[in-house]
Amino acid sequence: MRKEQLEEVDPMQGRFGIRDTSLARYLDGQHWQLKNELRQQTAQSQLFSQHRYDLSLDEMRDLSSERVKFVIKLPTVQQQLEEQIEKKKNCINKSLAIGEVLSTADLTTGVKMGVVCWLFGGAIINLGSQEHIEKWFQPLKEFIIHTPCEDAEKMYIGNAMKGNYAAVFAQLIVSGKLLGPHCFIVPVRDDAGNVHPGVTVIDMMHKEGLNGVDNGILVFDNVRIPKENLLDKFGSVSENGVYESPIEDRGARFNVMLAALTPTRIALIFQALGAMKLGLTIAIRYSHSRRQFGPKDKEEVKIIEHQTQYLRLMPHLAASLALTFTSRYAGEILDEDMYRGRNLANNRSLQALVAGLKAYSTWENLACLQDCRECTGGMGYMMENRIPGLKCDSDVFVTFEGDNVVMLQVVVRELLAQYARQYEEKPVIGLLRNWTGATADTLRTSILAFSTETVGSLSFLLKALNYRERVLQRSLAARLYSKVTIKKEEPFGAWNSCLHHVTYLALAHIHRVTLEQFWKAVEQCPVPEDKALLKKFCLLHGTNLLYQERAWYLEHKYLTPTTSVQIRSQLTELCRSAKEDALTVLTAFNIPATTVHAPIAGIPNPRATWAYYPHPRLDHPGAAKATVLARAKL
Amino acid sequence: MRKEQLEEVDPMQGRFGIRDTSLARYLDGQHWQLKNELRQQTAQSQLFSQHRYDLSLDEMRDLSSERVKFVIKLPTVQQQLEEQIEKKKNCINKSLAIGEVLSTADLTTGVKMGVVCWLFGGAIINLGSQEHIEKWFQPLKEFIIHTPCEDAEKMYIGNAMKGNYAAVFAQLIVSGKLLGPHCFIVPVRDDAGNVHPGVTVIDMMHKEGLNGVDNGILVFDNVRIPKENLLDKFGSVSENGVYESPIEDRGARFNVMLAALTPTRIALIFQALGAMKLGLTIAIRYSHSRRQFGPKDKEEVKIIEHQTQYLRLMPHLAASLALTFTSRYAGEILDEDMYRGRNLANNRSLQALVAGLKAYSTWENLACLQDCRECTGGMGYMMENRIPGLKCDSDVFVTFEGDNVVMLQVVVRELLAQYARQYEEKPVIGLLRNWTGATADTLRTSILAFSTETVGSLSFLLKALNYRERVLQRSLAARLYSKVTIKKEEPFGAWNSCLHHVTYLALAHIHRVTLEQFWKAVEQCPVPEDKALLKKFCLLHGTNLLYQERAWYLEHKYLTPTTSVQIRSQLTELCRSAKEDALTVLTAFNIPATTVHAPIAGIPNPRATWAYYPHPRLDHPGAAKATVLARAKL
Repeated sequence: MRKEQLEEVDPMQGRFGIRDTSLARYLDGQHWQLKNELRQQTAQSQLFSQHRYDLSLDEMRDLSSERVKFVIKLPTVQQQLEEQIEKKKNCINKSLAIGEVLSTADLTTGVKMGVVCWLFGGAIINLGSQEHIEKWFQPLKEFIIHTPCEDAEKMYIGNAMKGNYAAVFAQLIVSGKLLGPHCFIVPVRDDAGNVHPGVTVIDMMHKEGLNGVDNGILVFDNVRIPKENLLDKFGSVSENGVYESPIEDRGARFNVMLAALTPTRIALIFQALGAMKLGLTIAIRYSHSRRQFGPKDKEEVKIIEHQTQYLRLMPHLAASLALTFTSRYAGEILDEDMYRGRNLANNRSLQALVAGLKAYSTWENLACLQDCRECTGGMGYMMENRIPGLKCDSDVFVTFEGDNVVMLQVVVRELLAQYARQYEEKPVIGLLRNWTGATADTLRTSILAFSTETVGSLSFLLKALNYRERVLQRSLAARLYSKVTIKKEEPFGAWNSCLHHVTYLALAHIHRVTLEQFWKAVEQCPVPEDKALLKKFCLLHGTNLLYQERAWYLEHKYLTPTTSVQIRSQLTELCRSAKEDALTVLTAFNIPATTVHAPIAGIPNPRATWAYYPHPRLDHPGAAKATVLARAKL
Repeated sequence: MRKEQLEEVDPMQGRFGIRDTSLARYLDGQHWQLKNELRQQTAQSQLFSQHRYDLSLDEMRDLSSERVKFVIKLPTVQQQLEEQIEKKKNCINKSLAIGEVLSTADLTTGVKMGVVCWLFGGAIINLGSQEHIEKWFQPLKEFIIHTPCEDAEKMYIGNAMKGNYAAVFAQLIVSGKLLGPHCFIVPVRDDAGNVHPGVTVIDMMHKEGLNGVDNGILVFDNVRIPKENLLDKFGSVSENGVYESPIEDRGARFNVMLAALTPTRIALIFQALGAMKLGLTIAIRYSHSRRQFGPKDKEEVKIIEHQTQYLRLMPHLAASLALTFTSRYAGEILDEDMYRGRNLANNRSLQALVAGLKAYSTWENLACLQDCRECTGGMGYMMENRIPGLKCDSDVFVTFEGDNVVMLQVVVRELLAQYARQYEEKPVIGLLRNWTGATADTLRTSILAFSTETVGSLSFLLKALNYRERVLQRSLAARLYSKVTIKKEEPFGAWNSCLHHVTYLALAHIHRVTLEQFWKAVEQCPVPEDKALLKKFCLLHGTNLLYQERAWYLEHKYLTPTTSVQIRSQLTELCRSAKEDALTVLTAFNIPATTVHAPIAGIPNPRATWAYYPHPRLDHPGAAKATVLARAKL
C-alpha cells in the first residue's frame, strides 16, 4: 500500500486519462469521437464523481433519476435520440456506443437509459406507426387493459415507481377472438405522479444491485385506454371493430412482436462489455502494481507474475476484445436492417446471433468480474474499489431480457431451421437416417492431419470451432429426429431431454462467431503494431475456447492426447506473454480516471486513501517484505 | 405466483419446520440435538426474524453486535465456550456445529462469532499459556508494538471499530535480534471505547457483504504493552531479557504460529456449508413449485423438470452432502488433536486437509449460490429471497483466512513432503529421474480394464480420482526436480511456472478425500432407506468430479472416448433421478422456516407477498399459461 497521492493521475494520459491512440480508435470503432466526448462529459459531471453505494433506496433512485436526466440533456445524446426517431443511418451503432460508455460510468444509468430509449422507445419505434411517436396519447376509441390473474402480473418493470406510461404486451381480444399479444401504451400516472384508477403498482424494493432502477409490478383492473394506444404496425383495429394485420398467422405475428426485443438485448451486450472493461482495468492495473511473494532475499514480484493470476485474467481480456468486435458486427447488421426499414422478424439469423451473444457476453462478464474480484483479494471486496458493485449490478443480466438458457434455445431453433433449409432439396430424412446409423464422421477426417505449427494457427483454431459446431448441429438434428419421428416422443419432452446438447451447440456457434469476427478485425487493422498485439489476443481467445472444450475434441478424436496437452501449454504461454501487453490494451479502453474511481487502480480517492496503489510503472522502488515490529523494551 | 399465505408453514414439519428424522440426525451428526436447540433459539428470536439488508452501515453493525451478544448469552453457547476453555473432548466439533447453524441464520453473526471465538480466542488458547486466558492484561515489563511502514499495516481486522483488544502477530526483536513473528495481545480501546494513544484505527467502511462486520486497519506507533501480553507458548522472554523457545528453528516456529489458523479455517468451511444448504433449500424448493413451459395445450411443467435446471442444481446438492461428511471428518481430527494437547503444527496432513477443504468448499459454495441465483431468475435477484445476500456475504470466503490459491499451495507442499517421505529409503533422485524419462505410466495399466457396469460403481470412481491424484503428484515432483535440480532454475520461478499444476493437484487431492469420506458415510449409514438415498448422491458427486476432469482422463487414456460419453450420460441420469429425492434431503437440512425467510421458498413474508410461492407439493392445481388481456371495447 502506497499513499503518495499524485496530483497528476497519470502523466502519460490526457485529460481525465482519455488518450487518442490508433488502438483506442480501432477498439472504439467508427464512433470513437462520440464516445470520447461522452466520456469527458460524464467524467467532469459532479453527478458521476463518486461511486455511490452508501445511499438508501430512495436516495439511490433519486440520484439515478438525476443522472439519467443529466445524460438525456447532453447535446450528444439529444442529437442521437433525434436521429433514432428519424431512423438515420448509424443511429443504432451510436446508441450502442453511448450505452457502453454510460455503463462504465454507472450501470444503473446505462440500464435506465436502456429502459427508456430501447424498451419503451424501441417498442414504439418498431411496433408503432410514425404518428405514434408524437400523438399516441390522444383518446378516440378504447381498449380495456386487464390483468386476469396473478400469474399474468408483469414483474420487474423498470421505472415502475416513477414512469408515466408503460408499454404493455397484452393478449388482444376483439369480439371474443384471441389475436395474440400486441403492444399497448398504458398511462400509469398523471403528470403529478398520481397513479391512474385501475392501476396497481407494487414496489419490488431491494435487489442485489441496480437499486437505482425502480422495478415494480403493474396490475391492471379494466383500465380503459384510447384505441390509438395500440401500436399497430403489425395489427390494427378499424373504426368499426375489424382486426387487420399484414401477417395472417398468429404465431408469425407473435414472432414479429418478439423481434422488437432484439435492440434491447443488443444494448445489454454493450452494457456487459462496459462492465467487463472497467473490471479488467481495475484488476489488471492492481496486479501490475501490488507485489507479493518472490525469490528468497529479493524484492517481491508483481502479482501479475503469478502464473495463476495471468491464467485467470488474460483469457477474459482476450474475450473482451472478441466481444468488442463481435458486438459491433451485430450492431451493424441491426443498424442496416432498421435503416432499410426491414422487418426484424425476417432476420432470424440476427435474432439468433443477438440472443446467443447476449447469453455468452453476460455470462462471460460475470465470470470475468468474479475473477477480477478474487484476483484483487480483500481489496476487491471493498465497495470503494468498484468491482463488487459491478458484479452485483450486472448479475441480473444473465436472467433478464430473456433468461440465458432460453436465449440459447432461440439460437438453436434458428440453427436447426438453417440445417433443414440447407438440405431441403435433398432427401433430409434419409440424410438424418444415415447420420444416426453412421459411426464414422466424414467431416472429421478431412482436417485431422496437422502438425505442431498448425495447433498454434488461427486457421486451425477456427476450423476446430467450426467442426464442433457442425457436428453438434448434425447430431442434435439426428437425436431429435430419432426421438420425435422414429420413437414418436412428445416434442416438448424430446427437446427437454436434449437441452444440455442444445446449450452446448448454441455456445459453440457463438464461440465460433466471436473468433471469426475477432480474426476479421485483426486482418483489417491498419496499424502493424496494433495488428500484432490484437493477433496475440485473438490467438489467446481461440486457444482458450478450444482448451475449455478439449474433452469434447478428445472424445471426437479431433485432438490427440498429445495435441490436447499442446493446447494447454500454448494457452499458458500466450497468457504469460499477453500480460505484458495488457496495460496497452487497458489504456486503449480509454476509461476516464474519474470514472474508474477505484483507489487500487491508481485513482486517488479521499474516501479510502489507505487503498491507493499508484499506477503501474515499469520500475518500482524496492518494497521490502514488511511486518509489524515488536521490540522488547527491557 | 400464488398468494395463498398458509398459516401453517408446512403441515409436514414440526415447530419452525424442524423435524426429527433419521436422515436429519445422520446429516447433523453427533451434535444434532445441540444444533436443533440453537436453530429453535435463533428462529424464535426477534433479532433474527427478518433478513435485514436495508440498513445503514452503523445500523447494520449495531444489529450484528446485538445478534452476537444474544448468541453469546445463550446457555448452549455459554456452555460451549466454557468447554472450549477447559479443552473438553468434542468442544471443537460442537463449536463448528454452532458455527454452521449461526451462518444459516446470519452469515455476519457466524463470522463475528468466528472472529471473537476462533481468531482472538483461538490465538490465546493455542499460543498462550493457561494463565493467559484470565490475566494477560496485568502489566509487568513491556513490549513496544510498532508499525514501521505502510506495507506493514494490517488490514481487514474484524471488530476493529469496536474491539477492546487485538491479537497482533508482530516480528519480535530482542536486543536487536529478529526472532520471527509472535502473537501479542494489544489493548486498542479502553472500556469507554476511547482508542489508546499510539493506536490509529481506520474504518474500511462498505464492503460487498458482511457489512455488520466492522473491518478496519490498525496502525501502532510505539505502543507499550506489558510483557505478559506476549502469548508465550512457543517463545518467551525471561525477566532478564533472554529469549527462550522450545523450538530452535525460526522457520519451524513460524509454522507453529501459522498452525493456530487451522481452527479458523475449519470454522469457515462450516460457515460456507451453512450458506450452501440455505441457498439450495431456497432454489430447489422454488424449482419444485414454479412452473414454466411444457407440452402443447397441457399444464406447464415444474422448472425442476427442465434438464438444464436439474443439471445445474443437483451436483451442488451432492457436493453439499460430501462436504457435510468431509468437514466433520476434519473437525474430528482437530478435536482429537486439541483434546490430546497435540501441537497442531505437527499434524501437517490436517493443515493440508483444512487448507484444501477451505479452498474447495468456499469456491463450491460460490458456484452453488451463483447457480441458485440464476436458477431462480429475477426472483433470485430480490434481496428478500436471501440468495443475493448469501452470495455477497460469502464471496469474501474465497480470499480471506488465506487466499484459496495460496491454500492450494499449502496442500501441495504437504503432498510433496509426503511423496519425499514415501521414498526416503529408496533412491529418490533416481526414481524421479526414471519418472521423467519414462513415457509409460505403470499406475495406469493396472486399472485400465473395466466394463460398462464399473463406470457406474463407486469403486471405479474412487480409483479414478486416486489415480489422478497420484499421477499429478508424481509428475509435479518430476517437473520440479527437473527444473530445480537439473536445470538449476531459481526455486520461486520454478514453483511459479508450475502453479497451474499445483492448484490442480491440490484440488484432485481434496476431491478424492470428499468422495472417500462421503463413501464411508454411506457405508456407515444405519437406516437402509437413508443409505440408498445417500448412495445415489455419492455416486452423483463422484460422477460429477470425474466428468469435470474428463479431459485429463482422456489425455491420459484412462477414459476412452466411449466411456467418457458414458460418464456424461450417467451424470445426466443421476441428476434426473436425484431431483425427486432433493426435497427429502432439504427437509433433513432442517433449516427453520423463520431462518429461511425467502417467500419463493414458501415462507410467507409480509414484505413481499407478491413473491410467495407455496411449498412444493406432489400435485399442484392446474396453472394455465396467463397473460395480460386487452379486450377491444367497441
